[in-house]
Amino acid sequence: MQQYPQPLERLISELKKLPGVGRVSAERFAFYLLNQETEQVRRLSQALVQVKERIHPCAQCFNYAEEQLCPVCSDPKRDRSLICVVSHPQELLKLERTHDYRGLYHVLGGLLSPINDVHPEDLRIAELLQRLKSEQVREVILALDPVVEGEATGMYLARAIKPLGIQVSQIAYGVPVGRDLAFADELTLSRALQGRVPI
Amino acid sequence: MQQYPQPLERLISELKKLPGVGRVSAERFAFYLLNQETEQVRRLSQALVQVKERIHPCAQCFNYAEEQLCPVCSDPKRDRSLICVVSHPQELLKLERTHDYRGLYHVLGGLLSPINDVHPEDLRIAELLQRLKSEQVREVILALDPVVEGEATGMYLARAIKPLGIQVSQIAYGVPVGRDLAFADELTLSRALQGRVPI
Repeated sequence: MQQYPQPLERLISELKKLPGVGRVSAERFAFYLLNQETEQVRRLSQALVQVKERIHPCAQCFNYAEEQLCPVCSDPKRDRSLICVVSHPQELLKLERTHDYRGLYHVLGGLLSPINDVHPEDLRIAELLQRLKSEQVREVILALDPVVEGEATGMYLARAIKPLGIQVSQIAYGVPVGRDLAFADELTLSRALQGRVPI
Repeated sequence: MQQYPQPLERLISELKKLPGVGRVSAERFAFYLLNQETEQVRRLSQALVQVKERIHPCAQCFNYAEEQLCPVCSDPKRDRSLICVVSHPQELLKLERTHDYRGLYHVLGGLLSPINDVHPEDLRIAELLQRLKSEQVREVILALDPVVEGEATGMYLARAIKPLGIQVSQIAYGVPVGRDLAFADELTLSRALQGRVPI
């Protein structure tokens, strides 16, 4: 006997597919689960199936949704003249937690990256432009990762949106609040200087 | 909207129960799974259920088994006069991979640890003694973690087994002391088996 029983090997090999999980961690998870109550393992098993069955992209903004529209899009109190563009639903949630933004969102599904073969047609850019043409939107706020791909995506979007007569803005790049200035990298500081505001 | 949809939150909270997995890793796993094909997520879900449905302790040695007896116990070529005592099935598999041991095993299910409230009746010690009384066993080899609890468990077992007229030995301290047995490499384990000493 030089292998675990087949169902255990299969579980280990499925767990190994999780990001950052190697053989050792996968075995650790599998043994842990094997020693848990059947009910707990069943809950995880069902949560997996339900997440795929019940969650799908919002028909309007591509945020995660259980209904046709996500909670943001279906909220009548939201300002429909503002659309904040993010790459993933995780970032949308982060922005929601600030309690500062009351507009709608649009989730691109990634960032442009020719090196990784991600082109405009791979993102929900056409869907965004369609929304801008059919809805009364005053301003599009870009909240994309401050990396090369994020900036390239922002440039591309700005060029596509401006001809529609809609204002395009971008969240400020600057030093993170609550940390020593000495920890900020030079590029961030440089951007923070460029984006200085009168007080 | 300050929370993920409920099925996603539920999956994250179930994944967070895995050993060493915090909120950040659990979210990473959940987002990864949400972006996978339904078929892949279903495979993991089914693997979880099957591991609990199809794997149970071997009726004789408490190794993982799909049948009533595990592959080792049901192998007629095994030397039934030798029983190697381990704490968990993982260690049994490590020993199997050395190709050096042709006897049977007994899986205790842990190590004695009064501090953590693990007492003799919490381990399969009575079942081991029962096996020794009813089978023709010549020698019991202790292959327990070289930590305080492993040594205490070994001492306890030696004291209980010796009156039965059965030799008790212990794998040699070729294994690196102070680390879990599961981390030992196969060569070290093989040497430790060969160099076992009577106690």
